[in-house]
Amino acid sequence: MAIHLGANQYGKAESRVVRIYRDTPRHQIRDLNVSSALRGRFEDAHVTGDQRDVLPTDTQKNTAFAFAKEKGVGAIEDFALTLGGHFLDAAPAADGARIEIEEYPWQRITVDDTGHDHSFVRSGSGIRTTVVNVQGRGDDRKAYVVSGISDLVVLKSTGSEFHGFLKDRYTTLPETNDRILATSLVARWRYDHTEVDWDKSYDGIKALLLSEFARIHSFALQQTLYGMGAAVLEQHPEVAEIKFSAPNKHHFLVDLSPFEIDNPGEVFIAADRPYGLIEATVVRDDASDAGSAWHAVPGFC
Amino acid sequence: MAIHLGANQYGKAESRVVRIYRDTPRHQIRDLNVSSALRGRFEDAHVTGDQRDVLPTDTQKNTAFAFAKEKGVGAIEDFALTLGGHFLDAAPAADGARIEIEEYPWQRITVDDTGHDHSFVRSGSGIRTTVVNVQGRGDDRKAYVVSGISDLVVLKSTGSEFHGFLKDRYTTLPETNDRILATSLVARWRYDHTEVDWDKSYDGIKALLLSEFARIHSFALQQTLYGMGAAVLEQHPEVAEIKFSAPNKHHFLVDLSPFEIDNPGEVFIAADRPYGLIEATVVRDDASDAGSAWHAVPGFC
Amino acid sequence: MAIHLGANQYGKAESRVVRIYRDTPRHQIRDLNVSSALRGRFEDAHVTGDQRDVLPTDTQKNTAFAFAKEKGVGAIEDFALTLGGHFLDAAPAADGARIEIEEYPWQRITVDDTGHDHSFVRSGSGIRTTVVNVQGRGDDRKAYVVSGISDLVVLKSTGSEFHGFLKDRYTTLPETNDRILATSLVARWRYDHTEVDWDKSYDGIKALLLSEFARIHSFALQQTLYGMGAAVLEQHPEVAEIKFSAPNKHHFLVDLSPFEIDNPGEVFIAADRPYGLIEATVVRDDASDAGSAWHAVPGFC
Amino acid sequence: MAIHLGANQYGKAESRVVRIYRDTPRHQIRDLNVSSALRGRFEDAHVTGDQRDVLPTDTQKNTAFAFAKEKGVGAIEDFALTLGGHFLDAAPAADGARIEIEEYPWQRITVDDTGHDHSFVRSGSGIRTTVVNVQGRGDDRKAYVVSGISDLVVLKSTGSEFHGFLKDRYTTLPETNDRILATSLVARWRYDHTEVDWDKSYDGIKALLLSEFARIHSFALQQTLYGMGAAVLEQHPEVAEIKFSAPNKHHFLVDLSPFEIDNPGEVFIAADRPYGLIEATVVRDDASDAGSAWHAVPGFC
Repeated sequence: MAIHLGANQYGKAESRVVRIYRDTPRHQIRDLNVSSALRGRFEDAHVTGDQRDVLPTDTQKNTAFAFAKEKGVGAIEDFALTLGGHFLDAAPAADGARIEIEEYPWQRITVDDTGHDHSFVRSGSGIRTTVVNVQGRGDDRKAYVVSGISDLVVLKSTGSEFHGFLKDRYTTLPETNDRILATSLVARWRYDHTEVDWDKSYDGIKALLLSEFARIHSFALQQTLYGMGAAVLEQHPEVAEIKFSAPNKHHFLVDLSPFEIDNPGEVFIAADRPYGLIEATVVRDDASDAGSAWHAVPGFC
Repeated sequence: MAIHLGANQYGKAESRVVRIYRDTPRHQIRDLNVSSALRGRFEDAHVTGDQRDVLPTDTQKNTAFAFAKEKGVGAIEDFALTLGGHFLDAAPAADGARIEIEEYPWQRITVDDTGHDHSFVRSGSGIRTTVVNVQGRGDDRKAYVVSGISDLVVLKSTGSEFHGFLKDRYTTLPETNDRILATSLVARWRYDHTEVDWDKSYDGIKALLLSEFARIHSFALQQTLYGMGAAVLEQHPEVAEIKFSAPNKHHFLVDLSPFEIDNPGEVFIAADRPYGLIEATVVRDDASDAGSAWHAVPGFC
Repeated sequence: MAIHLGANQYGKAESRVVRIYRDTPRHQIRDLNVSSALRGRFEDAHVTGDQRDVLPTDTQKNTAFAFAKEKGVGAIEDFALTLGGHFLDAAPAADGARIEIEEYPWQRITVDDTGHDHSFVRSGSGIRTTVVNVQGRGDDRKAYVVSGISDLVVLKSTGSEFHGFLKDRYTTLPETNDRILATSLVARWRYDHTEVDWDKSYDGIKALLLSEFARIHSFALQQTLYGMGAAVLEQHPEVAEIKFSAPNKHHFLVDLSPFEIDNPGEVFIAADRPYGLIEATVVRDDASDAGSAWHAVPGFC
Repeated sequence: MAIHLGANQYGKAESRVVRIYRDTPRHQIRDLNVSSALRGRFEDAHVTGDQRDVLPTDTQKNTAFAFAKEKGVGAIEDFALTLGGHFLDAAPAADGARIEIEEYPWQRITVDDTGHDHSFVRSGSGIRTTVVNVQGRGDDRKAYVVSGISDLVVLKSTGSEFHGFLKDRYTTLPETNDRILATSLVARWRYDHTEVDWDKSYDGIKALLLSEFARIHSFALQQTLYGMGAAVLEQHPEVAEIKFSAPNKHHFLVDLSPFEIDNPGEVFIAADRPYGLIEATVVRDDASDAGSAWHAVPGFC
């Protein structure tokens, strides 16, 4: 019987790189979780155990920390592009490199109404992410950037309906014109190219996702997500497509009638499991080819 | 051989009570995790299985949701005091009731520079907590309130030293005059009485903990915590004592010398385990008796 | 600007279905975590909010529980195939249905050297999984089954080397002829068809993965995984390909030389992050076409 | 205003010490999570930041690893007693030392019907724990040992009733003569002295807890726990008292009547939150004084 090695990838996951800029007394902090991986022609490493083509995961980790000083850490997209290109060059057997970075947000602590120079508190709405895939050599090199946000927990206490759905023998859900809509949003958007002001684009998209979630009168989480995605594509020409994964964090109205208490949309129980899970993509008609952009993007491939 | 029932306690943990106030178009949200427990003379339930003295945990849950409407949800301390007193009355065999509540913070989503009426985003710096213990009947009834904050992740990128410590055969740690100091703080403070403006007190203590963490030049996490606690006691006469549990979230300077790169306090690796764990109490000399205030306070009893 | 709906999917995640068979005093238990999703032509639901094509996630949940009684729960693959086919029929706008099931293992508690009739303890080595994708209607219907195991934590205290790897400027890792090799294995294998004795196949593959991990002298985790996969393909003709995701759970030899203590492979620190992450596929040369088999398989798409 | 330092404790938490015995080709593994802490007269460290009395947490970590080689790792109780005594000696300002150890169970992988010499798989029913408190100097030194088991997930599919309970206005729970009883048990027992065959005692108590859970016909989780505890005290004279913390992992019978399906105890939904939480202690009448045995025992102080 004949067998062969199929798709493969290896790397160092979750290097917690913290970079402090202290050139002035007013420090800056960038707090990253960096994962890198290489894929390609690594048959020897797998079949015979010969590691001559394998740049160790330990070296990948060392490089992430060294580059944090040598190259500096600006936007995570730039740092990921730099690392991805470097690893592809460093490992000739690799066909592609994938860099994933999460960035945790910090705010300056307020002292006497001013942000402190070197003291920070973790703030909580959303974790910034990017997955960069770099492929090819020389003139054929292509780089794909998929950035996003996760852990963005949002809730509407009204302005959400759900009715008119398909019914069958197993349907018991009552229709409703007023419910709580809540989700822990994950959004990932593919950039059309790499000539982007990353920080500005991220800030704009995050603010837009939030305001559209608030603004849209919802007939279903699907329609809310589509509207949010459409707004991003309309206002951010640098974005080719955007994908959402949104667990419907159910808030069930509690039945207080056994206690002769009325409950007109005031007391809810927040449930854990099961939960609806809605996934959707909104794409620009003339979007560039996705290539390997979505390769190994967690939850979206 | 003779045996007997010792300390016991039973209740319903983690009822996720979400209360929406919608009397005007500008909704308010209070998002709680409520746990209740009763303790006392429950020998029959344990020894023979006779449940006649046991108010079921399911009833405790129902009551939490019903009270969210009947009594309303203001400060979590008030809601806990109301529930605790009620349960002690409802279960004659109980000697004490314990109510623990966590409250998750939400902010209004900004739309057109204004906070939206009914759309919210979870914000992230710290979870408000309270543990209320109620004991005794009639004139002997006493209520103890221990409130706090958890998940308050803070970091100083300088202004932290650690040296002059005790050394023995197993000591290898170098002394340092400049390191990162970071922790995920848990603080719990015991109120001296229950005549408190709870929300105002919480907001003041939280802001003070943050600003003192920033302000204090640190010679050890112990000394930082002590200073933070002292400031709280000085400015908040309603607080009898304050306890801290603070994991030292180590950020190790990365040795880049193998790559001939200097690293003067700029690139760190954030480590997971092991971690230092510092616990300390700061007490007012004339503090009232703690009674059962610290009964079953997670991590602090 | 023109935009459109791209890939989409919706369903109910993590319904915790527990089925007890109590036809005789010797009960059987099957403890499942069921997730279902539909994908297809759901433009109206997204663009206009019209839900007429949408079979609610609540109905999907109801169906999973109802089928647990109506159809019974045997092998999770059979249960998933039944659910997937049903949902595709129930929702005419759907092009495909995806069912994911995890099964948690229970053992009978031993009483007087015998397994008890109706008392069980969760056992711990590995969680059984399946992802079934069903597509098409009538004669075009195709069903794909990808089963697997997760959380299989294994360790070799010797018989593992790592050397001869590619080196560059950032390489500091010493070569070794003896190290601990440990991983929390996730394996997922695609069945070539659906005429399979699922329980027997799963038991055989699990035992084989374990014994091959033990048997193979390792020159890298890649080579261990390849050997394990090759053995599965050789002994299980029903398997078309197998994929692995294996975090290298590093156990670093502790340097005790500052204390003048020798440490010849005896005392290790188990590290959390970062970790190497090795992913590999072993494929039969004449494997059937994968079709949509790997659609939305967590971690492997 | 005068304030002072109250209860305090500091140490290194969660050192993951893995000890391999390789004196013969048949290796042994002990896989530990070690936490140590010192408490006492550490005012200077807190008030002025003077660390001269503080044995750094880093040194505590070093010692745990060094002792794993120097002293060896047998029963976790012995290892904890050795570490605790050492730390109290090493830090003159300390009044007490607390050592907590968790041990993760491994089984040999079966190859050709035999356990392999150096390949292991994590097995899953229960994590062994100990908390040792050592106090005093010279002849006054006392050592307290509280051992236990956590994560012991057990379920009875019948043989469990719940009725005859106290009812009030908020009670809706129906009485039942047949339900699923399930919990993720945590048990901690205090040893009367330290002249114990720790491994044998642990194995005996674990087996007894399981078999009693199976054997006892339950009228409430309280009564099941009491019976389990009584059996331990009866058969293990070395145990002075035993405490339980048992979340009632609710399995609710699913109402299938909307689909005209009968469900006589066959299909359940396993719920996450809220959950009943039952805590109980069973004590020998002539138990020795607990002293500081329960100091900082997580969940039981």
